[in-house]
Amino acid sequence: VIEIGIIGHGFMASAHARAWTIAPQVFDLELTPHVAVLAGRDPHRTAAAASRLRIDQSSSNWREVIADDRVQVIDVCTPVDSHAEIVSAALAAGKHVLCEKPLSLNTAESARLAAAAEIAHSRGVVAMVGYNYRRVPALQVARSLCQDGDIGRIRQIRMRYLQDWLVASEAPWSWRLDAKQAGAGALGDIGSHLIDLAQFLIDDPLESVVASAGTAVHRRPTSSGSELREVTVDDTCSFLAVSVDGARCSFETSRLALGRKNQLQVEIDGERGSLAFDLERLNELQLYTADRPIALRGFRTILVTEPSHPYMSGWWPPGHVLGWHDTFVNQARDFIAAVAAGQSPRPSFEDAHYVQVVIEAVQRSADEGSWQAVRWPDTRVIPIRSNGALGPGTNA
Amino acid sequence: VIEIGIIGHGFMASAHARAWTIAPQVFDLELTPHVAVLAGRDPHRTAAAASRLRIDQSSSNWREVIADDRVQVIDVCTPVDSHAEIVSAALAAGKHVLCEKPLSLNTAESARLAAAAEIAHSRGVVAMVGYNYRRVPALQVARSLCQDGDIGRIRQIRMRYLQDWLVASEAPWSWRLDAKQAGAGALGDIGSHLIDLAQFLIDDPLESVVASAGTAVHRRPTSSGSELREVTVDDTCSFLAVSVDGARCSFETSRLALGRKNQLQVEIDGERGSLAFDLERLNELQLYTADRPIALRGFRTILVTEPSHPYMSGWWPPGHVLGWHDTFVNQARDFIAAVAAGQSPRPSFEDAHYVQVVIEAVQRSADEGSWQAVRWPDTRVIPIRSNGALGPGTNA
Amino acid sequence: VIEIGIIGHGFMASAHARAWTIAPQVFDLELTPHVAVLAGRDPHRTAAAASRLRIDQSSSNWREVIADDRVQVIDVCTPVDSHAEIVSAALAAGKHVLCEKPLSLNTAESARLAAAAEIAHSRGVVAMVGYNYRRVPALQVARSLCQDGDIGRIRQIRMRYLQDWLVASEAPWSWRLDAKQAGAGALGDIGSHLIDLAQFLIDDPLESVVASAGTAVHRRPTSSGSELREVTVDDTCSFLAVSVDGARCSFETSRLALGRKNQLQVEIDGERGSLAFDLERLNELQLYTADRPIALRGFRTILVTEPSHPYMSGWWPPGHVLGWHDTFVNQARDFIAAVAAGQSPRPSFEDAHYVQVVIEAVQRSADEGSWQAVRWPDTRVIPIRSNGALGPGTNA
Amino acid sequence: VIEIGIIGHGFMASAHARAWTIAPQVFDLELTPHVAVLAGRDPHRTAAAASRLRIDQSSSNWREVIADDRVQVIDVCTPVDSHAEIVSAALAAGKHVLCEKPLSLNTAESARLAAAAEIAHSRGVVAMVGYNYRRVPALQVARSLCQDGDIGRIRQIRMRYLQDWLVASEAPWSWRLDAKQAGAGALGDIGSHLIDLAQFLIDDPLESVVASAGTAVHRRPTSSGSELREVTVDDTCSFLAVSVDGARCSFETSRLALGRKNQLQVEIDGERGSLAFDLERLNELQLYTADRPIALRGFRTILVTEPSHPYMSGWWPPGHVLGWHDTFVNQARDFIAAVAAGQSPRPSFEDAHYVQVVIEAVQRSADEGSWQAVRWPDTRVIPIRSNGALGPGTNA
Repeated sequence: VIEIGIIGHGFMASAHARAWTIAPQVFDLELTPHVAVLAGRDPHRTAAAASRLRIDQSSSNWREVIADDRVQVIDVCTPVDSHAEIVSAALAAGKHVLCEKPLSLNTAESARLAAAAEIAHSRGVVAMVGYNYRRVPALQVARSLCQDGDIGRIRQIRMRYLQDWLVASEAPWSWRLDAKQAGAGALGDIGSHLIDLAQFLIDDPLESVVASAGTAVHRRPTSSGSELREVTVDDTCSFLAVSVDGARCSFETSRLALGRKNQLQVEIDGERGSLAFDLERLNELQLYTADRPIALRGFRTILVTEPSHPYMSGWWPPGHVLGWHDTFVNQARDFIAAVAAGQSPRPSFEDAHYVQVVIEAVQRSADEGSWQAVRWPDTRVIPIRSNGALGPGTNA
Repeated sequence: VIEIGIIGHGFMASAHARAWTIAPQVFDLELTPHVAVLAGRDPHRTAAAASRLRIDQSSSNWREVIADDRVQVIDVCTPVDSHAEIVSAALAAGKHVLCEKPLSLNTAESARLAAAAEIAHSRGVVAMVGYNYRRVPALQVARSLCQDGDIGRIRQIRMRYLQDWLVASEAPWSWRLDAKQAGAGALGDIGSHLIDLAQFLIDDPLESVVASAGTAVHRRPTSSGSELREVTVDDTCSFLAVSVDGARCSFETSRLALGRKNQLQVEIDGERGSLAFDLERLNELQLYTADRPIALRGFRTILVTEPSHPYMSGWWPPGHVLGWHDTFVNQARDFIAAVAAGQSPRPSFEDAHYVQVVIEAVQRSADEGSWQAVRWPDTRVIPIRSNGALGPGTNA
Repeated sequence: VIEIGIIGHGFMASAHARAWTIAPQVFDLELTPHVAVLAGRDPHRTAAAASRLRIDQSSSNWREVIADDRVQVIDVCTPVDSHAEIVSAALAAGKHVLCEKPLSLNTAESARLAAAAEIAHSRGVVAMVGYNYRRVPALQVARSLCQDGDIGRIRQIRMRYLQDWLVASEAPWSWRLDAKQAGAGALGDIGSHLIDLAQFLIDDPLESVVASAGTAVHRRPTSSGSELREVTVDDTCSFLAVSVDGARCSFETSRLALGRKNQLQVEIDGERGSLAFDLERLNELQLYTADRPIALRGFRTILVTEPSHPYMSGWWPPGHVLGWHDTFVNQARDFIAAVAAGQSPRPSFEDAHYVQVVIEAVQRSADEGSWQAVRWPDTRVIPIRSNGALGPGTNA
Repeated sequence: VIEIGIIGHGFMASAHARAWTIAPQVFDLELTPHVAVLAGRDPHRTAAAASRLRIDQSSSNWREVIADDRVQVIDVCTPVDSHAEIVSAALAAGKHVLCEKPLSLNTAESARLAAAAEIAHSRGVVAMVGYNYRRVPALQVARSLCQDGDIGRIRQIRMRYLQDWLVASEAPWSWRLDAKQAGAGALGDIGSHLIDLAQFLIDDPLESVVASAGTAVHRRPTSSGSELREVTVDDTCSFLAVSVDGARCSFETSRLALGRKNQLQVEIDGERGSLAFDLERLNELQLYTADRPIALRGFRTILVTEPSHPYMSGWWPPGHVLGWHDTFVNQARDFIAAVAAGQSPRPSFEDAHYVQVVIEAVQRSADEGSWQAVRWPDTRVIPIRSNGALGPGTNA
């Protein structure tokens, strides 16, 4: 058994708690996770959440949880602005850390945390960030197809993540709309997933970006309705990018796309094959390959529920589809396996730092209205390529 | 009967010729179009095309055709670089003109042609450009929904036009890959459709753009295979834009999107409704509206084949779908109706000039790597809004 | 030039007339079809239709048309009850015949017509029935995949043709609802297409059938609304069948399927591959094959618009989709080619007679509430197989 | 806490065990389920399963589990042939029972069990059958639309459940292929789901049926490969039916439909609306309604993940989709709620008996090759309606 302390008691804490419970029933794990304690600022709400999630103990002091000798893993499910402090303390205390995404408010924090994780790693401590869509089986298949060369050199990727919960002017204010607590808006919350996924899929960092971001509603009522609060983040952000290897990329995020509930879509165009994926149909992967007579080619819908698909041997027979939450169970498995092996799991804090570096470049671009270099690897500053942005006749 | 002279004998000339033939069988037309003559540079190939298209007469001299007293309409289906000369001559001769898109190589030409059309119009001459996708019934329904306020204020549009005929390095060179003959590549050929459609749908011009364009293969074999020729246009071009009324827009064009054959997609997000369309399923329109209990909302697929749908009363019973070419028949109807009424049809040369103005802004942006104002209306230069490009917290 | 006389002036006559016009522009034909005359009972309406369809001459006497020496092809587009007389006269006069489907009211007629066509054929006369869906390129690809063994032995087929124009009780009466004029209802009108297509695709006749048919609304107003008339045909008819080679088949037809406008769907399950098709997306064919690692299998959507696809070399570039009517153009091509070659085209009158034989077995089954043998080939009566219908543990 | 004993240790036992674990984390339950013991014939495999599923105790004697005073619920996940004995004993011992579907091998057993459940119910004992698809939120919405009259009188339903795990001749024999252990094949295993769902959705029992069933491969190798065993059940079974209220129904089941992994599809045509559902996309419901201008009608895809949708308030934010297994969690909630309320939950044993009655009618029909009455309610024998099967012009 490996004892876990969850910090936070919101929606994400529930998702994690359920995953820790289910994972050992689905997979043969080297260690059996057990959530020992749930921590949150408000004692009453924390206790209520613990009770609902069948966690025996609750605490209103996360430092206590980190100090608890039984607890081996700190699972951080709090708003973004508290990540740095909690994670630092946990690593310093020699605890393994799973931190929800995005890792931090900015690159200063994420750089520091990545460095701390690296040091901690040398002492056998494992740290990972909760970009759970890496654990969608269909996206693991997609990655293999990209990495193994099956679809050839990648020429273009198109990614988008669209939601609609801010369409109405009356949609309530929350911490996610406050730049201080959330860092960024759609870009940070859902755009971070896209940036991480792109890197996961094609393993080719972005080199330069140009962005357009906006906020449609500037003041929103608090949940109680008693006052209006300032919205200080973007509710829509799109950007174009060129990767180091020259792939043309487009990214779109929005909380204003009426009718799109949680629509993360990925399209990758290679020289010999193409892929498409939609999170609202997360068991399906679209694959087009050019290895047939042209008269028989087409995008095929692979139902990613076969025992030979990633993660699926632990789940159900073919055709018995997974849901959104099951990606957290897969994530729990991978985290436990990493702890058991003492190996650093992906996405690492370094991976998450990369995401922050891109986010900052995008924000800079949106602020300044110009192409921006992604300063990665961050030890050196990469100038925009001379053909960065990039008229007809050029070739990036 | 109204006599037509077609200039050009390629794929587009075929599409037009068939449409002139069919239109009077489908619709009650005020005038019956008849193609009197087909003109083309090469006498043999022109004669062969005329014979195949059941056109009695062919000519290797387009000036003769314009000079022919019988001919009332000049239908220009030649490569882009010849449009300006032919169209100018036709208008000067008092002939009605239908010109294939894009209208011109550049804004200098399109401005001149638009002015000429305006003058000609005062003499009862009608001029139109062949952006035929305006004649897709589903897109006419989409426009009505946008214009009538059914979907509320438009907040975002996403448009793309993807093809894959240049994926292989061995795909042959053609005039479409030569900047001198074609003006631009994917941007001019298929991007022009997107720009025109966006304007048609939401009637809100683009104000500023930022683009990323590239060419993957720089030299391609001629059809005969005997030599390699330079590719001097983009084969992929994406751009972000902000409209005058503040809609956030993204546009993507590519000839490298493996598996996408002719995939023009449109998505429009309004405050009260959203739309989606795919040219590969051109009889279908997706509509989401917020006027139901949320539990029963969803994108609905309207099969646009009812007699009450635009153009459809002339066609077939419900469910009997139209094809790509039928949009040319619809276009022919609208052109003939305009001639009969002596009214200026849309898309006018002015509309087409607007498309060229946007294309040039996009090209400038791709060349210079920066946001560019769309200089429209072109009598004045609009500066980029101070919040043009547009960090979190701003509102365009 | 080959001169054609069309008998009938309704919706189908329009579809045929346009096809004769267009076919020679699309395909290189050995003979150029030309519609010389349109015949119909009512002189005024016939003349109006002829004018709309750009046919120079009209007639109110079809016998005159058959007697006309110029006319080489009689194209029969009248209600079903007149087919036998007109077709017989045309064949007797040595005219080539294209007859709309279904060929006849009953098997007595179709047997007689098939015999007449066989005799006429020995004199060089060609006869074909207008089951136009054989001319959908995607279904031609489907047939090849079945015939060439690509999908292995066929185990199951599921076909359906759903419409909704009779859902409302106020939908008006027409000749299609009268058993005397139409023979059967949904079964005869749209079910006949399914029966013909099944045979076209798998070349394996049905051996026995069991059916369920019904009529929901028994009296409907005439178009004028002045009176109610009796509906004497089925508006919904489903049947199960077993083919001679043991394929399990299901067929469903309905005019009551609200929201289904013209939804002909086909699914074929083979031992090594499966197919699916939907007429509302007629350019697409779904194909699943078992010749890949299972992790990469899936139904692929082939966009049947490549030059290498059947008929497509005459049409447009890849991705430029065909519509419903274009199948008539393809049909016209095949008919003309058959005439030019003096070869008997398919679907022959014999093929259409087979359809009638199945229809009658289905009607018998619906009337008597029992499995019925399909008496085909009709020279002998086939008993239902002892294991015809066919408990667990049996194998047909 | 309410203590549960699971009998069985296969795939279904896993699905149930995980659901008992998760349900109290998702929903506020009146009682917290806890699995006290897992029973199975083979002690080693049972112990291994218990360990994997985090169940503290295992047993090789199910009678012991029933006799265990702590255990309040017996959850039966064994092959069908053992249901009757175990369930009877459990009810006799006053235990609540959740039994996997189908309830029994035949109607004799199900009648007896339904009677026993009724008697037990009078003593406060609750019994339910695991037709879990009643717990798909989208299907609950579908039922409401049918029951509330939103789609008008139901005229037709089409249901199918297709799998492909028996396509290959080498697919191994299992107890599911043995009539003695399984009762029926595709019909009993997946067809039973369809029959139950149809009743759940439209609340209108089937009155008469006619079926076609078959077995393609008669001998299959055992898993070890050492011998061939007889397949004594159908691997494909289709039937047509007419409901008491006159709805025309078709049902198809197959284990030979290559490429269809677990494809349960439902289509319901009403006079004012239509529905469609596909289990492979279980979060989506298709709805067509006739309450709009015809030009704006279409099937809309409702993503059934809103808090106002059945069950969803306990789950995730909109757009975060459920998986197949989550239906078992919903089922666990409903069962616990029923136990807490002392109310008889649905589907009751009586509901499951109805399914068996239909199955037997279908089997009789397949054996005898004729329409069969569904003897329901089973206290009287209903003759086939005189217009049972049912020629053109009749109206059922």
